[in-house]
Amino acid sequence: MFALEPAAMERLSLNQITVDQWSLEEAIDGCIRAGVGWIGPWRHKVQDVGVDRAARMVRDSGLKVSSYCRGGFFPALEHEIAARHEDNCRAVDEAVALGTDVLVLVCGPSIDKNIDAARRMVVDGIGALIPHARAAGVKLGIEPLHPMFAGERSVVVTLGQANDMAANFSSDAVGVIVDVYHVWWDPRLYEEIARASGRILGFHVSDWMVPTEELLAGRGLIGDGVIELRRIRAAVEAAGYGGPIEVEIINRGLWSRPGQEVLGAVVSRFPEHI
Amino acid sequence: MFALEPAAMERLSLNQITVDQWSLEEAIDGCIRAGVGWIGPWRHKVQDVGVDRAARMVRDSGLKVSSYCRGGFFPALEHEIAARHEDNCRAVDEAVALGTDVLVLVCGPSIDKNIDAARRMVVDGIGALIPHARAAGVKLGIEPLHPMFAGERSVVVTLGQANDMAANFSSDAVGVIVDVYHVWWDPRLYEEIARASGRILGFHVSDWMVPTEELLAGRGLIGDGVIELRRIRAAVEAAGYGGPIEVEIINRGLWSRPGQEVLGAVVSRFPEHI
Repeated sequence: MFALEPAAMERLSLNQITVDQWSLEEAIDGCIRAGVGWIGPWRHKVQDVGVDRAARMVRDSGLKVSSYCRGGFFPALEHEIAARHEDNCRAVDEAVALGTDVLVLVCGPSIDKNIDAARRMVVDGIGALIPHARAAGVKLGIEPLHPMFAGERSVVVTLGQANDMAANFSSDAVGVIVDVYHVWWDPRLYEEIARASGRILGFHVSDWMVPTEELLAGRGLIGDGVIELRRIRAAVEAAGYGGPIEVEIINRGLWSRPGQEVLGAVVSRFPEHI
Repeated sequence: MFALEPAAMERLSLNQITVDQWSLEEAIDGCIRAGVGWIGPWRHKVQDVGVDRAARMVRDSGLKVSSYCRGGFFPALEHEIAARHEDNCRAVDEAVALGTDVLVLVCGPSIDKNIDAARRMVVDGIGALIPHARAAGVKLGIEPLHPMFAGERSVVVTLGQANDMAANFSSDAVGVIVDVYHVWWDPRLYEEIARASGRILGFHVSDWMVPTEELLAGRGLIGDGVIELRRIRAAVEAAGYGGPIEVEIINRGLWSRPGQEVLGAVVSRFPEHI
């Protein structure tokens, strides 16, 4: 039924959180040694070395940058809004320095029980960020997170909701990120992927383990869980996305293993499962 | 905005899992001592003492039974389907014996990666159970579980999906259970509660803690978390549900405390938060 060809290895991108035990420099070296052409850096790793040095390291390596993770966290108290906006503008600038035109938005939790108000703050915050992002040539990718993160990380929890939010803005400014871990369970997944056509700015893969032992760092290596990875990839491609595929596995066990071993497993599993 | 009167104490029902440290007999005694008029027994506790004895204990106590938890787990291998159906028929019979006309359905996970097929098996399984349930005077309540349980407990994960499934059947046979813990995050929550009008067979309350430390047994006491409990109650009432409200808190910490203390906290918080 989904007898697609495996995804081209050239599309594999290492999302840096998968090897959080590595510095940015180690991750870059690891990618080169493993023949991986893309990387998706996280902000804390970039800040560890400084943006200028990080940008130079990436540029010198020849690696392409699939996205920068992350801006967002829009819901805030009135007096915090300006600082959040400034920080998001800096994230846009860092994305540019690193050579990517996609900033992933993790939209943030509510500051109180009023989740509707928090969701409005997300839309307002994105709207406020667009002029700076557009001037910098950076698109904003709304990433819906799994509903189990609604209280702590993101009031945006379904692809349908991300699509609704993105529809407030031009598709050359705001799109969505499809991460299988966050959306695989959704009965409306395939219609919402189709609806996201022309807006998909990234595709992230990992797997859902059964059992899942912890909320944050319990993701599985691709192929170890229950997600229909290739079916979702087919849908994302049918919706027009043919860009890099980030392998983003947040797993405590993987972080305790040598990074090169983890990346080796990712590389060998990618053509089998993606 | 939601300046409703507190829910009447007469609507409070103790869902037995909240005090899993108690036997059925202890839970019944506890309810009587605390002035709680309803109980929602779980099947493992009923089976501990045997259905006949459990039914007699409940009858003699004068407590009303809000629902029986649970039937379901419909997705199964071909050769297991008949046994699952028989077991669900027994659950219907036990509900009758206990004196309730609501059987809660926890629909079960998929047996493989084909989640669509599993969802079809749920609809088929409910359809097959209806004749027996209808003859027994028992309604089937589809309870959507939180999407974080999609891999292990239920492929039914949103109220919208439960409404869609229920719509295949007559409203005097199949309805839905609204449990705030499972649905609070949903951007479509209030429209789906409204759509469930005439189908709501139960309303369950607990709270979502920030942070949430574990998937299964990390629910909070009502009032300790971030869920807009009274707003959801208002929506459920506006959709026509005025029946018992089960307090169903699955929390490892509460199970280690004396049951009467836990029930006391539930009773004192109920009018404040529900």
